[in-house]
Amino acid sequence: MPIAAPSPDAILADLRAAIAAMPPVAAMGVEIAHYDGTRLRVHAPLARNVNDKGCAFGGSLNGVMTIAAWGLGFLKLAEAGQRADTYVQDSSIRYLAPLFGDLVAEAWLSPGQHWDDYIAQLAARGRARATVCARVAGSDGADAATFEGRFVALRGA
Amino acid sequence: MPIAAPSPDAILADLRAAIAAMPPVAAMGVEIAHYDGTRLRVHAPLARNVNDKGCAFGGSLNGVMTIAAWGLGFLKLAEAGQRADTYVQDSSIRYLAPLFGDLVAEAWLSPGQHWDDYIAQLAARGRARATVCARVAGSDGADAATFEGRFVALRGA
Repeated sequence: MPIAAPSPDAILADLRAAIAAMPPVAAMGVEIAHYDGTRLRVHAPLARNVNDKGCAFGGSLNGVMTIAAWGLGFLKLAEAGQRADTYVQDSSIRYLAPLFGDLVAEAWLSPGQHWDDYIAQLAARGRARATVCARVAGSDGADAATFEGRFVALRGA
Repeated sequence: MPIAAPSPDAILADLRAAIAAMPPVAAMGVEIAHYDGTRLRVHAPLARNVNDKGCAFGGSLNGVMTIAAWGLGFLKLAEAGQRADTYVQDSSIRYLAPLFGDLVAEAWLSPGQHWDDYIAQLAARGRARATVCARVAGSDGADAATFEGRFVALRGA
């Protein structure tokens, strides 16, 4: 059932609270950095996500991209006044270059897909799927890691 | 250059130390559970890896599978008396069922590949690649998540 859509600030506050409530995401130090209505950017410090080689742990690179992608879906549902549990179903990650700085992940809907369709599917069937892309940029601006994941939103009974 | 291979206990202790030294892996509470020479199993408590739905965070499921796969490569290099930095290059993950218990990930070399070839490649060229599989079992024993990742070992100068 649609609910009254809260304000943009309230929606971002809800996402921040959801992230803070997940121990593994809080442990990575993930914070919302920017949201323009289309792309969500999150930030995590290298110190909390460093591996044995002094660069970003692959599991953390995937983690920040997964949470950016999931968070974007969270925002889109909230903006439409919808509530649903959203799960990642599968994902592919490429680790392209070691990252010796903080992790900044940006997520966006896969080209050719539309959030309006996702919201309409959820409203009609109680279930919707979206493919979300994400990347982490290296210090030179080139991709350090890329992500593509399929998410499913399931509306509770 | 080959180095004298340490004892099995010393190799496992080295892996435990490497894992403990990585903040994001330590934050997940990852511990070595079992190693039989072919498969490495690691354990992480649900409480540290729980999401907004009360089940295991996808990023953590990937994280424990990535570290199990990476750890298996670490052990195989150490057993052969080799040292190299090992990086994950790419991975594909399927999240098949929500997991409401602790995360137990098991990793093994992809069928058709051989660690002897990997070690020989590294010795000959200073670089070697291996594809490693992993899974997390659900409480019913079926797969909760599966992982396939390609790893590259690079010997320092």
